[in-house]
Amino acid sequence: MSTTSGAHTLVRRSHEERVLRILQRFGALSRGEIARRVGLSRTTVSEITTDLLGRGAITVVDTDANERAGSGRPAERLAIDPGSGQYMGVDFGHRRVNVAVADAAHEIIATGTARYPESAQWPERLSAAFALVERLQVDRRVHYGALQAVGVGVPGWGDRSWADGVAESFADRFHASVIVDNNVRFAGLAEALHSHPDTVNNLIYLRLSDGVGGSLVVDGRLVRGATSFAGELGHVTVAEAGTAACRCGKRGCVETFASAPAILARCRAEGAQVQTIDELRTAVAIAHPGVERVLRDTGAVIGRVLGAAAMTLNPSEVVVSGEIVDVSPALVQQVAATITYELSWQPEMAPVVRAAVLRDEGGALGAVAALFHESPLLKSYPEAVRAPSGGRTSTTKEHNMAGPVVRVGGARCRS
Amino acid sequence: MSTTSGAHTLVRRSHEERVLRILQRFGALSRGEIARRVGLSRTTVSEITTDLLGRGAITVVDTDANERAGSGRPAERLAIDPGSGQYMGVDFGHRRVNVAVADAAHEIIATGTARYPESAQWPERLSAAFALVERLQVDRRVHYGALQAVGVGVPGWGDRSWADGVAESFADRFHASVIVDNNVRFAGLAEALHSHPDTVNNLIYLRLSDGVGGSLVVDGRLVRGATSFAGELGHVTVAEAGTAACRCGKRGCVETFASAPAILARCRAEGAQVQTIDELRTAVAIAHPGVERVLRDTGAVIGRVLGAAAMTLNPSEVVVSGEIVDVSPALVQQVAATITYELSWQPEMAPVVRAAVLRDEGGALGAVAALFHESPLLKSYPEAVRAPSGGRTSTTKEHNMAGPVVRVGGARCRS
Repeated sequence: MSTTSGAHTLVRRSHEERVLRILQRFGALSRGEIARRVGLSRTTVSEITTDLLGRGAITVVDTDANERAGSGRPAERLAIDPGSGQYMGVDFGHRRVNVAVADAAHEIIATGTARYPESAQWPERLSAAFALVERLQVDRRVHYGALQAVGVGVPGWGDRSWADGVAESFADRFHASVIVDNNVRFAGLAEALHSHPDTVNNLIYLRLSDGVGGSLVVDGRLVRGATSFAGELGHVTVAEAGTAACRCGKRGCVETFASAPAILARCRAEGAQVQTIDELRTAVAIAHPGVERVLRDTGAVIGRVLGAAAMTLNPSEVVVSGEIVDVSPALVQQVAATITYELSWQPEMAPVVRAAVLRDEGGALGAVAALFHESPLLKSYPEAVRAPSGGRTSTTKEHNMAGPVVRVGGARCRS
Repeated sequence: MSTTSGAHTLVRRSHEERVLRILQRFGALSRGEIARRVGLSRTTVSEITTDLLGRGAITVVDTDANERAGSGRPAERLAIDPGSGQYMGVDFGHRRVNVAVADAAHEIIATGTARYPESAQWPERLSAAFALVERLQVDRRVHYGALQAVGVGVPGWGDRSWADGVAESFADRFHASVIVDNNVRFAGLAEALHSHPDTVNNLIYLRLSDGVGGSLVVDGRLVRGATSFAGELGHVTVAEAGTAACRCGKRGCVETFASAPAILARCRAEGAQVQTIDELRTAVAIAHPGVERVLRDTGAVIGRVLGAAAMTLNPSEVVVSGEIVDVSPALVQQVAATITYELSWQPEMAPVVRAAVLRDEGGALGAVAALFHESPLLKSYPEAVRAPSGGRTSTTKEHNMAGPVVRVGGARCRS
């Protein structure tokens, strides 16, 4: 009986997620409407909603008495309780921090941006972020007391020792669970959820910026890997001789060829006067042949790397992002063409290949999404839970495990 | 409250899995011993075991009265109930079918092999498998009535229309849930669980055989991808010119270079008289320089492909398998060296690179493991559930969804 019961529980878990997702999408619904939309029996939906009501996740908002055509008792309508918590996503870039706050119904209720000089160190960046959240609170949109969890995106991974400090600062300040992760990883998740919230379970995301980073969603979950470096496609070797040395110490990495500075430099070597992405846009507008060639070559190289990754992971979408991608349609076209050829032997594998839809806001939205969109997402995070110092709770012994980048605190997470 | 409750449930789910795993490993334990071994509080363990007892997954086997040193009431000892079900793994190769049957405690209680000619079609292969299971039943080790689920591994994917037929045949015959998948995928899972049942959550597996196939375990789950082609590393392009045409229609695929027949052919081109893997073994034993060169070159090419995959997925282990690998230590050494260099920029990423431990039995063991080792594993399988025709149950409407390769039937899965 064990495994069958287990399987049954598993199915129920997944049904519960479907019920919550339908309520997120459609707002208030009666049990009968929920049953129809998720394709479950009334009995099953009743059991699930009873449980969700008991846990305070959803609430009865009204009845369908006014709209009801037929006879019979009016049906209660249920909705996610927006008062059941707030969730904050924070994305630290090199020159700005973005914040997005959502309620428990997954509605974004506040966003903001604060700037700092590129030379700013972590204390200054944190101060800017905290001041920004303070302003959002003064506007009465954000309530510290309602904050359940904070997801913080940080650039790159170079020296991770400060990730712990960042996590701790946020946990101490907001008495909430905190997750810290690479902001490209969060941006990829946001992209996966943005266009197809219900269907994109497998996505490969590549961002061309000062460096080249990637993000993977597999079976609806962000992939971190064994030591949280998953998605580091920037350092795949694409050529062995005659290529520039990479900051990583190897030669011929994707990054030496396809980062924004590398692309601009290669365009200049082809005679185009492009120092900035704006100048590249102008060169593309006049169809500068050297620039076109560089963008096609870049697309082909990236396409082969992403094609191999797609052969490995069989995603439904491959997304390329970055300011430089936005001004270079030829690049994305060539990426798509190369991936199409690589996977041509098996047409069923063909993914959608496209430029990213979200711009700078993606990181903060993805950080929020990581907190609650798919509860199994958090399973891939290290099991590291800690009460913040001076927080409202004592440390719960069984949760007190060490971990590199996750801090979870506050009584609300364990009550 | 919704998400926090959700997070709490999630933690409990994971604790339950830890309790079950400890019982699988150590047999009968008291609640106190369980609590110590999994690092949970007595209270939490009590709640979990009460639930598991109620579901019939575990049973009280005795008390520790005899061994008890101190005073006080003897403590009940709990164990997984082996009578709670049997699980069968089936692996169809080109010339044989392997079967392994496990009880609910994850102990393998019966194994067997039946052969058929390579020319045998599916009806003949199925008959051979059913006759083999019949013999295992006559030996009183396997009980049809106890069979909860069957995992069936099949070679390759070429024409998948028959996968449905295979699933249906097994569901009809055994009135049990059936999963059909690529046997290399199952073999990779078995390899992931074999050496490190508790720790390997991220593994890349490559098999060099008549073709080249792969398998991925990410966050403890088998990866199928959007259309179940994940892991098809055999058709990554590794060279573009002057290489043999691949059966897939492209040129320069890994498979044209690193399948067992391709390696043997390249050795012959270097003057070694090797028609078979046994002859290759002899050539390796005398350190034939041409053969050594071919194996090193193969290892370097595979190493670059696996290095890129490791950059993508950040696994803790990379495993290379196949008869030809077993006789070619130089190949695995070179794979390891190349991956080490590719990931050298980030020492924390370095995975263990090794030859497979399991041989021909891996597929059937992996098929069993897929059924129950990690319940979340099944989450990545399409939600396709169906009562077998003539089975003991009527079709449950809410589960009656169409799906390509999964058939789940039998009342036991929904009671």
